[in-house]
Amino acid sequence: MTLNPDRFLDDLHRLQSFGASGQGKGVVRPAFTAVDIAARRWLAARMKEAGLKTHFDPVGNLFGVGGERSLLIGSHSDSQPEGGWLDGALGVVAGLEIARAAKEAGGPPISVVNFQDEEGRFGILTGSDVWTGKIPLAEADMLTDTDGLALGAARARMAERAREFLPHDMFTGFIELHIEQGPGMDASGDQIGVVSEIVGIREVRIVIRGRQNHAGTTPMAQRQDAFQALSNFNQRINERFSTVATPETVWTLGHATLSPNASSVVPGQARFSLQWRDGDSARLNYMEKILREVAEEVARDRGVEIELSEVGGIEPSAMDPRLKAALRQAAEELAPGKWLDLPSGALHDAANVSSVIPSAMLFVPSIGGISHAFDEDTKEADLVKGLEVLAQAAFSL
Amino acid sequence: MTLNPDRFLDDLHRLQSFGASGQGKGVVRPAFTAVDIAARRWLAARMKEAGLKTHFDPVGNLFGVGGERSLLIGSHSDSQPEGGWLDGALGVVAGLEIARAAKEAGGPPISVVNFQDEEGRFGILTGSDVWTGKIPLAEADMLTDTDGLALGAARARMAERAREFLPHDMFTGFIELHIEQGPGMDASGDQIGVVSEIVGIREVRIVIRGRQNHAGTTPMAQRQDAFQALSNFNQRINERFSTVATPETVWTLGHATLSPNASSVVPGQARFSLQWRDGDSARLNYMEKILREVAEEVARDRGVEIELSEVGGIEPSAMDPRLKAALRQAAEELAPGKWLDLPSGALHDAANVSSVIPSAMLFVPSIGGISHAFDEDTKEADLVKGLEVLAQAAFSL
Repeated sequence: MTLNPDRFLDDLHRLQSFGASGQGKGVVRPAFTAVDIAARRWLAARMKEAGLKTHFDPVGNLFGVGGERSLLIGSHSDSQPEGGWLDGALGVVAGLEIARAAKEAGGPPISVVNFQDEEGRFGILTGSDVWTGKIPLAEADMLTDTDGLALGAARARMAERAREFLPHDMFTGFIELHIEQGPGMDASGDQIGVVSEIVGIREVRIVIRGRQNHAGTTPMAQRQDAFQALSNFNQRINERFSTVATPETVWTLGHATLSPNASSVVPGQARFSLQWRDGDSARLNYMEKILREVAEEVARDRGVEIELSEVGGIEPSAMDPRLKAALRQAAEELAPGKWLDLPSGALHDAANVSSVIPSAMLFVPSIGGISHAFDEDTKEADLVKGLEVLAQAAFSL
Repeated sequence: MTLNPDRFLDDLHRLQSFGASGQGKGVVRPAFTAVDIAARRWLAARMKEAGLKTHFDPVGNLFGVGGERSLLIGSHSDSQPEGGWLDGALGVVAGLEIARAAKEAGGPPISVVNFQDEEGRFGILTGSDVWTGKIPLAEADMLTDTDGLALGAARARMAERAREFLPHDMFTGFIELHIEQGPGMDASGDQIGVVSEIVGIREVRIVIRGRQNHAGTTPMAQRQDAFQALSNFNQRINERFSTVATPETVWTLGHATLSPNASSVVPGQARFSLQWRDGDSARLNYMEKILREVAEEVARDRGVEIELSEVGGIEPSAMDPRLKAALRQAAEELAPGKWLDLPSGALHDAANVSSVIPSAMLFVPSIGGISHAFDEDTKEADLVKGLEVLAQAAFSL
């Protein structure tokens, strides 16, 4: 079985051209946008050329099936609103190259998957949430993006290609190759990371309702200012989360909008999202308890109403020991002394897939730890090393 | 000279129908939007019917000229993005009714003005800024709204009607009737307020540039989170401004946007506006000094860049003693024991106009102190009382 690193890198660059941002290698390819759909169609054509049987399921996941009872390799090709060229794309194109090389060599059957909406435009990991049965399709259809578009309406854009959901037992295991997205391996000089576990995540959308009013004539003491309540909420969350956080615990307020959002008006409403991650379910639950307490305190102290959505999320997931062992052995052979075991602080489709078939993940470094940004990148040698380790592990199984 | 209160109230309700929000009497009529332009055209037609000579100047201000060397009465008809039906509109329609009644009675000539963009979509009080010569038209044309639209492009929508700027010495004085927009008179039970002075205002637009990154894999200690910097900036401003504020001093962070504004991404950028108001220029300047210090501290402590626009604003303005005396006398005759002198915490076109001709202002109460919101309202009896006091003062001059 002979891999073709040039063909692999060339396909990665061609995929980047769908939704290229004009800033470095950045891409703008959120799930179900026109360029996301075009990229999925191009990938389907490449899979077909490679001798795989292509299949879109109702939620937009694309499979390239290499044979019955095959190992599944893949990730996702949708991006953040301002994303990098490797996040997800690397795992899909690596799967394509390995399945293609296997076909050419008459080797063991390898299948490829490209999950839809891993980046959570609508849900958490929407495509694998639905495929693994974590949430029913009808429920997922009600999920909306931050503009209020429903998944049900978005996926109608691919309806003419959709067929049934593939059964899980077609696949013997799942391996996802991904960039680390953090600074760890870039700093330590390691080339390969074998993921021990994926941290869990919780996310909630919050609305603060205050009292919209004139910014000149409303005395400070009489304001019910939704932005001030948001800022105070954030300050209290930072103080209280810090008391329970480990060095691995993270939380983010990355999305916020004010209404009416005018400089001469005391804001009447703030909508925002809060997300937190940790490897321990109990800690995640305790942080939710803190969040609810803080919401009650801020509502009372600031004279505002605070409404919390249901808390969504995913539990921490351990990776499969047999698949991990195969990845470690290949790493030691191809990158001796330059690999390590590490947890994943980012969420990945493998966290969902591990609930239905044995799953594992392999990381390559991110330059400067940058991801979810246009200047995300990884050295070519590291990309190719990841491909080689994954292929060797896949063929050893 | 006989006022017609029914005709006055009917015109006010007809003006409200331009940009009606569907929520109570609320209006959505920002400067140079299609409904704003339609409302100005309708007002011009009403002025013409009343025997006034209508005139649009290049920046979109509408005058209804009642005669040479006349008293000018008016305000503005543009609204906040989510505004009330009386803010500005009351003063324009009161001017129309008084000028119309004067024409009908063959009384002294009264002119009406409807300034453009008082609500500061592009600048501070853009229409009167340009008419009074505070800023040149060419400079105003470069001002942009929060979406990046330039005033130069917006005013091109009215270009076919625009003629020259009217000379200031056509007018002997300016009186603006306005709702209070604060809770003072509603609480005290007064019906008429004679404005002693208009507070000054300062406003700055700020950009914080941090480091966009992945919300799962970027350790808390390594983040340069633009939202966290914004929240910390706000907290420090609150602490430091509180030490110099009087009970009348106000400051507002009413407009903020994050980028890329996604729940799984550490925000790389925050853009926001900060505005502060006070009756004392020295205090306004000292608050600017504090602001600059806080920006430097936050930039240093949080590892972000903070860029401040030029600080715009307007100085506190005293009202003309002779016009004030006429308003006080009419108030005492028509609302004995139910009027007071008070400063204006809100900014108004009269603050600009006072730099070129003698100016004064008259307030009526706002129910619950609510303004810049759909549920802004004033009792009909108070609206009519304001009209009557203003007319009596105008004819006594």
